[in-house]
Amino acid sequence: MTFQYHPEIAKLGAAHLVTPDLDKSLWFFHEIIGLEITARTENKVYLRAAMEHEHHSLVLEAGDRARLDHVSWRVRRPEDLEGFHTILTENGNEVLVEAPNREDGYGESLRLQMPSGHKLRLYYDVDKPGVAEADRSVLLNQRYKSWNRGIGVRRIDHVNLWTTHDTEPQHEWLTQNLGFKLREYIQTPAGRLGGWLSVTPLVHDMGLMKAGPLETTPARMHHLAFWLDNAADVLRAADIVVEAGIKPDMGPGKHGVSQAFFLYVRDPGSGHRVEIFSNGYLIFDPDWEPVEWGAEDAALALTMWGPTDYVPHTDDNIMNTTTEA
Amino acid sequence: MTFQYHPEIAKLGAAHLVTPDLDKSLWFFHEIIGLEITARTENKVYLRAAMEHEHHSLVLEAGDRARLDHVSWRVRRPEDLEGFHTILTENGNEVLVEAPNREDGYGESLRLQMPSGHKLRLYYDVDKPGVAEADRSVLLNQRYKSWNRGIGVRRIDHVNLWTTHDTEPQHEWLTQNLGFKLREYIQTPAGRLGGWLSVTPLVHDMGLMKAGPLETTPARMHHLAFWLDNAADVLRAADIVVEAGIKPDMGPGKHGVSQAFFLYVRDPGSGHRVEIFSNGYLIFDPDWEPVEWGAEDAALALTMWGPTDYVPHTDDNIMNTTTEA
Amino acid sequence: MTFQYHPEIAKLGAAHLVTPDLDKSLWFFHEIIGLEITARTENKVYLRAAMEHEHHSLVLEAGDRARLDHVSWRVRRPEDLEGFHTILTENGNEVLVEAPNREDGYGESLRLQMPSGHKLRLYYDVDKPGVAEADRSVLLNQRYKSWNRGIGVRRIDHVNLWTTHDTEPQHEWLTQNLGFKLREYIQTPAGRLGGWLSVTPLVHDMGLMKAGPLETTPARMHHLAFWLDNAADVLRAADIVVEAGIKPDMGPGKHGVSQAFFLYVRDPGSGHRVEIFSNGYLIFDPDWEPVEWGAEDAALALTMWGPTDYVPHTDDNIMNTTTEA
Amino acid sequence: MTFQYHPEIAKLGAAHLVTPDLDKSLWFFHEIIGLEITARTENKVYLRAAMEHEHHSLVLEAGDRARLDHVSWRVRRPEDLEGFHTILTENGNEVLVEAPNREDGYGESLRLQMPSGHKLRLYYDVDKPGVAEADRSVLLNQRYKSWNRGIGVRRIDHVNLWTTHDTEPQHEWLTQNLGFKLREYIQTPAGRLGGWLSVTPLVHDMGLMKAGPLETTPARMHHLAFWLDNAADVLRAADIVVEAGIKPDMGPGKHGVSQAFFLYVRDPGSGHRVEIFSNGYLIFDPDWEPVEWGAEDAALALTMWGPTDYVPHTDDNIMNTTTEA
Repeated sequence: MTFQYHPEIAKLGAAHLVTPDLDKSLWFFHEIIGLEITARTENKVYLRAAMEHEHHSLVLEAGDRARLDHVSWRVRRPEDLEGFHTILTENGNEVLVEAPNREDGYGESLRLQMPSGHKLRLYYDVDKPGVAEADRSVLLNQRYKSWNRGIGVRRIDHVNLWTTHDTEPQHEWLTQNLGFKLREYIQTPAGRLGGWLSVTPLVHDMGLMKAGPLETTPARMHHLAFWLDNAADVLRAADIVVEAGIKPDMGPGKHGVSQAFFLYVRDPGSGHRVEIFSNGYLIFDPDWEPVEWGAEDAALALTMWGPTDYVPHTDDNIMNTTTEA
Repeated sequence: MTFQYHPEIAKLGAAHLVTPDLDKSLWFFHEIIGLEITARTENKVYLRAAMEHEHHSLVLEAGDRARLDHVSWRVRRPEDLEGFHTILTENGNEVLVEAPNREDGYGESLRLQMPSGHKLRLYYDVDKPGVAEADRSVLLNQRYKSWNRGIGVRRIDHVNLWTTHDTEPQHEWLTQNLGFKLREYIQTPAGRLGGWLSVTPLVHDMGLMKAGPLETTPARMHHLAFWLDNAADVLRAADIVVEAGIKPDMGPGKHGVSQAFFLYVRDPGSGHRVEIFSNGYLIFDPDWEPVEWGAEDAALALTMWGPTDYVPHTDDNIMNTTTEA
Repeated sequence: MTFQYHPEIAKLGAAHLVTPDLDKSLWFFHEIIGLEITARTENKVYLRAAMEHEHHSLVLEAGDRARLDHVSWRVRRPEDLEGFHTILTENGNEVLVEAPNREDGYGESLRLQMPSGHKLRLYYDVDKPGVAEADRSVLLNQRYKSWNRGIGVRRIDHVNLWTTHDTEPQHEWLTQNLGFKLREYIQTPAGRLGGWLSVTPLVHDMGLMKAGPLETTPARMHHLAFWLDNAADVLRAADIVVEAGIKPDMGPGKHGVSQAFFLYVRDPGSGHRVEIFSNGYLIFDPDWEPVEWGAEDAALALTMWGPTDYVPHTDDNIMNTTTEA
Repeated sequence: MTFQYHPEIAKLGAAHLVTPDLDKSLWFFHEIIGLEITARTENKVYLRAAMEHEHHSLVLEAGDRARLDHVSWRVRRPEDLEGFHTILTENGNEVLVEAPNREDGYGESLRLQMPSGHKLRLYYDVDKPGVAEADRSVLLNQRYKSWNRGIGVRRIDHVNLWTTHDTEPQHEWLTQNLGFKLREYIQTPAGRLGGWLSVTPLVHDMGLMKAGPLETTPARMHHLAFWLDNAADVLRAADIVVEAGIKPDMGPGKHGVSQAFFLYVRDPGSGHRVEIFSNGYLIFDPDWEPVEWGAEDAALALTMWGPTDYVPHTDDNIMNTTTEA
């Protein structure tokens, strides 16, 4: 029996962030967030979390200003790179094939761009470095010891992007080109406020929201999220952040959408916002109907309980809600 | 482009349990575990958890003795029923096509049997009943109010089966016929103690363990598991169970395999064991290498910390470790 | 050896609240907060929490408008009633001796008033009613089953009062007349914003804060607090409140002062604010130096992390920050 | 008005433990338990927890074999040292007055011995050293940063002693000489299995249990307990202990007596048992009736849920249940 082939994305791989203060950003992500370092070059550091096997889930690169360089995604099968190349170019997207250089642990990869301007990368082949004896978990199904340092996040979870464009066509582009499924969205008379999409049973591997009316930069990253197993761990994270002299950005609280228990914190080296989160729910139903929240439900969708506003930042180097992509 | 077609199972659907004391079992699963009732017939009750959309994730049926009747699984696409029918019969398995009768909310389904004797059922079409206003969650992505009653489990998670046969051929049968992936296993010189397999990013949708040496019944159910969002919720569950006059069977504790934080409790109406659990981890890597725990790691694999033995039961109606399938 | 005698308060007993909608207030405190009912009259209901032995820790009384009638305190020894009577009258306070009537379970008691106008009551003798078999905990050191209903608070914790008067003389009055110890306070150039005082190792059995500049009513209750064992229990409380159709007032979050993890919710029948809280710390040092937070520390003192503002209420029956005493 | 004077103990101060492997014990208490070091001499290390103001709550002293040297207690008022001296000598106890030497931060203190042979010490005057800037909490009511290292216990909680003597006379001795109040006890036909006593609202500042029938050493320490704010923190502690290569001794689980959520772990340098615990309840009632658990309640009293046995230790240096006093 033969069948129509669909290439698939298996998972979010990594976010590549540029920071104007690499030392401070590294302190934040390594000592406070608790990511482990797997590789370094002159101007880049590669990090991953305790449960992660791949080369990295975060790249920090020194640069003039804070921005999201790109988000990488792992495809399900080696042949899916070619499969996506075909679909993307047939749909009129420009795709660049990048040869493996192994500095970042990736084999061949595809570089592409969303209509919103956000840059993505697809890969299959990736190095999975081991862990030094002293840091290795006693558990055979885990890389680093639990609670090795700082907040001790378990894995990358999702990325949330902001655009000045209408979001609905972006969501459709993600569905038609990359196989994302829309899971929840907020629809108002003024347009779609945002959508949460995934390729896995997570409610979102990617969120894509409408930027505020005063925003002029077309593509931004709202936040990068890391997972903890328990809401209680997020509360501990809030203590650690404040003890480190950092004022949390928003939270803790619970979103209606995705039911995530969240804490938002900003890297003091770059202003990049990080979500420390837990709970939420999983979607196993193959015929899941996207949950529509109307204008009258939007407040509940964004905040079931907890704070509804971000703490204002006055530092000129830190834009108030997002960092540029 | 064409491609080799593989039917897929999307998720665990439900466990169908027979109980000699339907009233007491219903009290346990409804009032204590906190499942909601969606339908009743003269000798059966259908239940589901707060996050579940399908008609039921548990059937309780009155009968002479406690046993697992069968476990049902939802396939990913409607055509996967035919796809599995083809593969299963080509591989020499007997498959019975059952017409929809809608009492249980299912459309057409397939009945089959594992070599171990455990009975399975595959379906795609299923009713998704609504919820009465008074019980409905304010959240649009959830059916019933959170914490509506008792422990308030969120969803079914997995089933764990015991066999007197060698487990390795059973694991292979599940892989070759139903597309399960082996995620972790314990391998000793005396054979494979057990394996944890899944069709989703959960570490296991099904566990299949070797029965103890004195066991003569070939096929048993070790436990049926329900999910809670936090380890703290499992501790609250332990309080509720004891306040209800039930002595927990084992736990709380943490398995090395799957990193599940567990509490085992037995339905006083039937002796069926239920696992209340949280934490654990998800597998998104498409090339996950099954984790092998050797004989020297077996103790850690079974219990990272917490109790290692079940509380002995003296009630003649309750077998000590498992109920028959 | 003889010694200067000091009468002592042993503990907070109860808050007596008047509500314009007794049915709705009773629903809130019984079904949602989870207090148990010990007695009822035509216009009053007496309630207590699972861990409490005394007749009640809350009185709800039907009345024209929401107000705090009085707060009662248990003295350490029977003779302390006379001891306090002597001290209070020597210090020029009016004290009324109330004969036991047993409707409220109290023996003889003293009625008095703070200079701020808040009314207090002192008692020693109190009924300790039993619990019906069905509701009784299996634990011999606890009255009702844990998690019997709703949020399931464990015990009353403290009361927080607001005054338009300078707070410092009020704190001194509490210290000199009733033996309260000042544990923490916020001191600004404009005066003392508030103080937290206790007669037990809790950081506060009573908080006494300066009302906002627009406030004209001299004596108000800011909130009444109930204890839960874990921060995770407070998060569950937030779910329950929202599922019951109530918008939380503020939180969850963590105060710097007292390190309390808090959630504020208002009784929809009266507007009385309730704090659901956990964590915090205990003071065993007999020579504890009151912790002074200056103007520059006030933000941290009030909120270590979490929200800093109350949700505005538009209901005319509900004053925005406090209910009158 | 004059009054009969009673000296009072305000709180547990510290446990002084002797260890045959000071380096390993220090690693355990500093890096894993998370106590901070305040002073060192050639053969002693002084430690305290994040919330503690006094010079130390634990002394580790190098010695030939593991033993509890003594437990120190802070009296409520300076004159209580003389008050206790009078009572103790009048009751026929030998009391040694020790001059301050300030190595251990204590002023004048009293040395005495229980009839069971356990050694106690009373003090009032004590140094309260500050904290280096880098380690200091942002909170003015706390010494060290929260979650500074390891498990990060918050404060010492209680000590649990074992005796081969009848326990009832020991409990009476504690009540008559030192003002302890009996809070809960287990009474069987064979005698009193144990009692939990306190001078504070904690259910026990000291537990005193009957040693097993094979025990010949008259006085032992069963465990020393440290407090955490949440049950979830105790679960994290279990992870940390196992990741450090230590097998927990018992737990997690919940005692019926005191409702403590517990995890027992043994210092690998000495075999001294430490309880990491949370939850429990407070007693504010001045007329608390001691809770009696009969023989038929003893199992529930010891374990409401969780494990009931200690993990056997085979190391010759580690006695199986207790270390000698």
